[in-house]
Amino acid sequence: MAKSVAGPEIEKLIQLLAKLPGLGPRSARRAALHLVKRREQLLSPLTAAMAEARDKIGVCSTCGNIDSRDPCTICTDHSRDQSTVVVVEDVADLWALERAKALNAAYHVLGGVLSPLEGVGPEDLTIRQLIDRVEAGGVKELVIAVNATVEGQTTAHYIMDRLEGLDVKVTRLAHGVPVGGELDYLDEGTLAAAMRSRTTL
Amino acid sequence: MAKSVAGPEIEKLIQLLAKLPGLGPRSARRAALHLVKRREQLLSPLTAAMAEARDKIGVCSTCGNIDSRDPCTICTDHSRDQSTVVVVEDVADLWALERAKALNAAYHVLGGVLSPLEGVGPEDLTIRQLIDRVEAGGVKELVIAVNATVEGQTTAHYIMDRLEGLDVKVTRLAHGVPVGGELDYLDEGTLAAAMRSRTTL
Repeated sequence: MAKSVAGPEIEKLIQLLAKLPGLGPRSARRAALHLVKRREQLLSPLTAAMAEARDKIGVCSTCGNIDSRDPCTICTDHSRDQSTVVVVEDVADLWALERAKALNAAYHVLGGVLSPLEGVGPEDLTIRQLIDRVEAGGVKELVIAVNATVEGQTTAHYIMDRLEGLDVKVTRLAHGVPVGGELDYLDEGTLAAAMRSRTTL
Repeated sequence: MAKSVAGPEIEKLIQLLAKLPGLGPRSARRAALHLVKRREQLLSPLTAAMAEARDKIGVCSTCGNIDSRDPCTICTDHSRDQSTVVVVEDVADLWALERAKALNAAYHVLGGVLSPLEGVGPEDLTIRQLIDRVEAGGVKELVIAVNATVEGQTTAHYIMDRLEGLDVKVTRLAHGVPVGGELDYLDEGTLAAAMRSRTTL
């Protein structure tokens, strides 16, 4: 191994880089070499950016988004409809919806989905905080935008039950044919849902 | 984009992570989120490891290896045969040969291969330093371990020409069938070379 030939500093760097999603041991070695060879152009600025993220970025106490401000940029943005809250599993989903400019609204990041198999219960997610937000008033619509997986749908149903009796409209993302999708490659569930929700041309 | 929703710190981190080999814009976003969510377990130690690499790791002035020492660990290792120098294109090749425990010798990292198309000439590589090392004496054998590509072979021939008249044995890696390789999947050049270099069982 590189252990004995490049010193413990490089070895440590490789080990930590290998923990990033998308990098394995081999690509972590390539990434470490790439960094060390580009000290000024990449290693220094990336180190500084990571130090800044480490020191400044935190979780928004209102919605669970990550940001250098708390409440976050989205929660304090009054050009957004703060009475509509899009409920997502993860910050990555929030980013995806923002890239799509799907809705100019607020968010609530659950931090995962209910999964008895993986030991994830309601107390591991921010469901309590979501109910609190609704109970505090000002939320007119919750858009449940969890993944269309079994766990996602279970979580959506659990949230619906907890919202029982609260005065809030609850909606979910439409199911249907992905834009650009070919019918022949779609599963039957999606096709059946798209047919049920057919719209007038 | 995440620009407006997660602050400039995250955006900067994503942009820099995307410059690592093996990470694109999408996986850089995932990596950034992964880091921010694991501040103590990953973000802090990786930042520290990168700062240490930035401050300590340099290029060995003798062989071109990267290390926190100069001359590097390999050049100062007297349990190695320092009279045999393995000439490689890149530090990654040195690491690969070390992982294979191919030869307990010294190295010389060229820093690339001659490539007129990409404007890489002899003065861009460490060929001058290699000749100097040989002329200084003490080197009995040079093992040319460049890649078996056109550029690699051109570089090998150029080095041979420059070594003309110097008292050093020059060898190269054997061509042949990779261990575990299936003949049906190998190119004709490799098969012809393996046949020419056949050995007695």
